[in-house]
Amino acid sequence: MTTVVELGKRAQKAASQLGQLGTVQKNKLLEAMAQALIEKTTVILEANQSDLAAASELPRNFVDRLTLTKDRIEAAAAGLRQVAQLQDPIGQVDKAWVNAAGLRIAKRRVPLGVIGIIYEARPNVTVDAAALCFKSGNAVILRGGKEALQSNLQLAAVLRGVLAANDVNADAIQIIEDTSHETAARFMELTEYLDVLIPRGSARLIHAVVNQAKVPVIETGAGNCHVYVDRNSDKKMAADIIVNAKCQRPAVCNAIEKLLIHQDVAAEYLPYIAAKLAPYHVELRGDDTTQKILGTVVKPATVEDWSTEYNDYILAIKVVASFEEAVAHINKYNTKHSETIITNDYQRSQQFLDQIDAAAVYVNASTRFTDGFEYGFGAEIGISTQKLHARGPMGLEELTTTKYVVRGQGQIRK
Amino acid sequence: MTTVVELGKRAQKAASQLGQLGTVQKNKLLEAMAQALIEKTTVILEANQSDLAAASELPRNFVDRLTLTKDRIEAAAAGLRQVAQLQDPIGQVDKAWVNAAGLRIAKRRVPLGVIGIIYEARPNVTVDAAALCFKSGNAVILRGGKEALQSNLQLAAVLRGVLAANDVNADAIQIIEDTSHETAARFMELTEYLDVLIPRGSARLIHAVVNQAKVPVIETGAGNCHVYVDRNSDKKMAADIIVNAKCQRPAVCNAIEKLLIHQDVAAEYLPYIAAKLAPYHVELRGDDTTQKILGTVVKPATVEDWSTEYNDYILAIKVVASFEEAVAHINKYNTKHSETIITNDYQRSQQFLDQIDAAAVYVNASTRFTDGFEYGFGAEIGISTQKLHARGPMGLEELTTTKYVVRGQGQIRK
Repeated sequence: MTTVVELGKRAQKAASQLGQLGTVQKNKLLEAMAQALIEKTTVILEANQSDLAAASELPRNFVDRLTLTKDRIEAAAAGLRQVAQLQDPIGQVDKAWVNAAGLRIAKRRVPLGVIGIIYEARPNVTVDAAALCFKSGNAVILRGGKEALQSNLQLAAVLRGVLAANDVNADAIQIIEDTSHETAARFMELTEYLDVLIPRGSARLIHAVVNQAKVPVIETGAGNCHVYVDRNSDKKMAADIIVNAKCQRPAVCNAIEKLLIHQDVAAEYLPYIAAKLAPYHVELRGDDTTQKILGTVVKPATVEDWSTEYNDYILAIKVVASFEEAVAHINKYNTKHSETIITNDYQRSQQFLDQIDAAAVYVNASTRFTDGFEYGFGAEIGISTQKLHARGPMGLEELTTTKYVVRGQGQIRK
Repeated sequence: MTTVVELGKRAQKAASQLGQLGTVQKNKLLEAMAQALIEKTTVILEANQSDLAAASELPRNFVDRLTLTKDRIEAAAAGLRQVAQLQDPIGQVDKAWVNAAGLRIAKRRVPLGVIGIIYEARPNVTVDAAALCFKSGNAVILRGGKEALQSNLQLAAVLRGVLAANDVNADAIQIIEDTSHETAARFMELTEYLDVLIPRGSARLIHAVVNQAKVPVIETGAGNCHVYVDRNSDKKMAADIIVNAKCQRPAVCNAIEKLLIHQDVAAEYLPYIAAKLAPYHVELRGDDTTQKILGTVVKPATVEDWSTEYNDYILAIKVVASFEEAVAHINKYNTKHSETIITNDYQRSQQFLDQIDAAAVYVNASTRFTDGFEYGFGAEIGISTQKLHARGPMGLEELTTTKYVVRGQGQIRK
């Protein structure tokens, strides 16, 4: 089996070619990859069947994510075509100026180089991540969950086949075949060849990668998101946003986990909000005041609740005495993901946007909008909750870096 | 002595206030700090004397960097006033748009939070780094070389005094008093409180920090920079740029260490270039062809030479058979810092800019221009040679991150 060092060397070599490919050529290749996926549906499904056969004992959710179908392969192909449509960030000039010495300086977008992606047993991520890395001119080394290995190898073989047939180094897309923990550990320390490592998946996976990696990591994910309902606010708007942010898709990171509500409106709003949540069978956990207002429909919240991301139909509620208490609570317990205030008070709206420390802060909107597609980026590799390099939804541009391109006429420094 | 965890907590608390300070207030405080440094010159020099007394056995260069004088304190004060003049990146909106749901999305510049700086026994860095972090709204924890501790504590006391007198949390600027290796190691793992760690100093220091740190590091520094003299080029321009890039300040990272020259012009250019370098007593090391051309004035270059950053009056020379060989050599051995081509060939100039992987690539100009001041940023915290977050000269903007500020009218996700 190829060592990760060897994969790294090959990726680096492929990267130097990739960085020079034009947009038209990259788009044609992405379209050809989409076509190839459709044509190879049978062999892909066969590989997936062998993964599924070995995974029959695993939980239903897990097996569902591992499963490929004709429809899902078509969706992956459609995804490739969508990436072909995206604007190419490579070559874009962010700024350009002439300095005092007369040098023409331009800050030009270039690929990062080699990207490592670590993810779970989800074959669709293989195609998605490969497409985004390829379009942004980066070579990618993929380390997916071991249960999806046969599917991943077959999917990558199809994509690599398209590259090879078009005189592009197939090592632009590589899979780590050895899914042992030892190899994963070596992969995360491959500073000589990997420019960045992006873990995609559960909080546990991300945490493990952040802890182990020597390669710079872009941390994506965990969202302990809050909605704060201010004193001066629209009750119906508050309830609609809470229901949407909690129930539209509770398993994702931009769903809310906590409701903070100003004490002046808690008695009026909470029963109304609880009634709106009832059809979704949301388990409510509340502080003392909430329990007094809502009675037995609410369970007592413990101190652990305030820092927990449920990813489920659970909502913890706290009644706060002031706007300041809400801000302090959020900044103490949040995961710096997405936070929203429901208010009609101009001053409060500004203070919330200024004072809350998070990748995305909202006034009168659902936190569910924190998403590359919703923001209009056309794609998303994840939502960064760290502050370096990329913060919030990451599109193609976040998979690039810049270089200063400087044109002179013989200038020397005085 | 205060533990680094305690310093981290205090810094985080200070950071939340700092992020809300207005530009005018920050500038007034920087001016007041400058004034205070001048007024406290005597006590600062006394503290520096006690450092110097303990350092008398150390090398002259080292002692020189450790030494403060009235002039140097005035220069530090002038530096503070200069930072006050810089444009404040905080609050700046990089992009703003309306998404499909009608949300008004703005990508707003905000401080990183808490910055850790690890540096050598250079008290001027204490003031300089504190000023840049303060202006960009960040709290800073400074870990300078142990030989400068008394100077650093006194300098920080003066700056902190100004903050405290103006109702700003003095923990915006903190010094690690415990200069043990154990404490430095704990500091580099302080992921809960530090948003980023920036080592400033020698390649050895930077390497040690990159290797040990769990906190994200911005790697600055090492520069094995090349000049490539193409076949079609101006001999005098080539020599002038080589002399400038090698000799104007050989100890810095943007000085050139290597000269690659096309074989068609080597015999004509090299003696001319060597003559121009002679007054600076530059030691020349060359490959076989160079030795044949220049004779005994050049020593044989070994394979280690190609990857060595001398930071001294030494230049290694290689004659290449083609442009492609030059590009391959540079991409193999460079430290991704600054590279320049001397050419009159349009095609070659474009290819060099496209194909060389470095933070800054030049045509017909000295690599010595890779510098925050020369680029017009007005300040520099270092030159990043990594690809994430910041690449090339880092000014105030590179000490910030962004947050998405989103204004809605009740939008929920469909």
